[in-house]
Amino acid sequence: MAIIKHNSDFTWENVDVLKYKEEGTHFKAITRQLLFEGNRDLAVQLRYFEIAPGGHSTLERHNHVHVVMVIRGSGKALIGSEVVTLGRFDIINIPSHTWHQFQAVTREPLGFLCLVNTKRDKPERPGKEELDAIRSNAVAAQFIKI
Amino acid sequence: MAIIKHNSDFTWENVDVLKYKEEGTHFKAITRQLLFEGNRDLAVQLRYFEIAPGGHSTLERHNHVHVVMVIRGSGKALIGSEVVTLGRFDIINIPSHTWHQFQAVTREPLGFLCLVNTKRDKPERPGKEELDAIRSNAVAAQFIKI
Repeated sequence: MAIIKHNSDFTWENVDVLKYKEEGTHFKAITRQLLFEGNRDLAVQLRYFEIAPGGHSTLERHNHVHVVMVIRGSGKALIGSEVVTLGRFDIINIPSHTWHQFQAVTREPLGFLCLVNTKRDKPERPGKEELDAIRSNAVAAQFIKI
Repeated sequence: MAIIKHNSDFTWENVDVLKYKEEGTHFKAITRQLLFEGNRDLAVQLRYFEIAPGGHSTLERHNHVHVVMVIRGSGKALIGSEVVTLGRFDIINIPSHTWHQFQAVTREPLGFLCLVNTKRDKPERPGKEELDAIRSNAVAAQFIKI
């Protein structure tokens, strides 16, 4: 199919609205849609994540990098030691091995495209030591949801 | 820089608005911005193209594939033998070696993200024989601008 039509309200024709992850309590009110699954010619995936007001993604890190673009609403994110405010069409580069978490902190959902390599490592969540290290940064300590 | 802020009106902080191509009369009223230039960790580029009303991209084909998402306005595109109508957040997959051209056919600009491999072949424009072949399709013949 050459074209995938946007229905409205950030769903697309013949694209399933999926669970963010299969299980866990380390995230809240977030969905996933796979917009481009990657192939031999272009070995990346383009996903759309949407976090409902009050929700958040998992606090995690991994070797693979993310390029993110907000296309709906607004929110905030922890990227390493920084908490950034996100608005529509802002672009976020998440380097390798950098702790990150997205949160929908306003009355709007936070919807964003996320670009990754098709082949990638599994995310890692912080253990007690890593959490202590993250929390040694007051800004991060106040922000994160576990 | 972890975050590239969207200014407004589809320009971004510290991102240059570039010429679409260095020279030629085979395109009209189109600009290019490089939003992610690619690196060892993620060997793709994310570009934003914007076509002003009445403008168009080059009619071309190449081995590398495109994944496109409209983020501003509306328009039309030739993709192979089809002319498709494009609206906001529609996704277009342009397979390898497929003739394509984007046009801003309404009073709105047509702005779209375009994802490609960093390493890619150069586009090819149609010669006389290829043009005859493209024009054997009445829909394409009526649409294309050379």
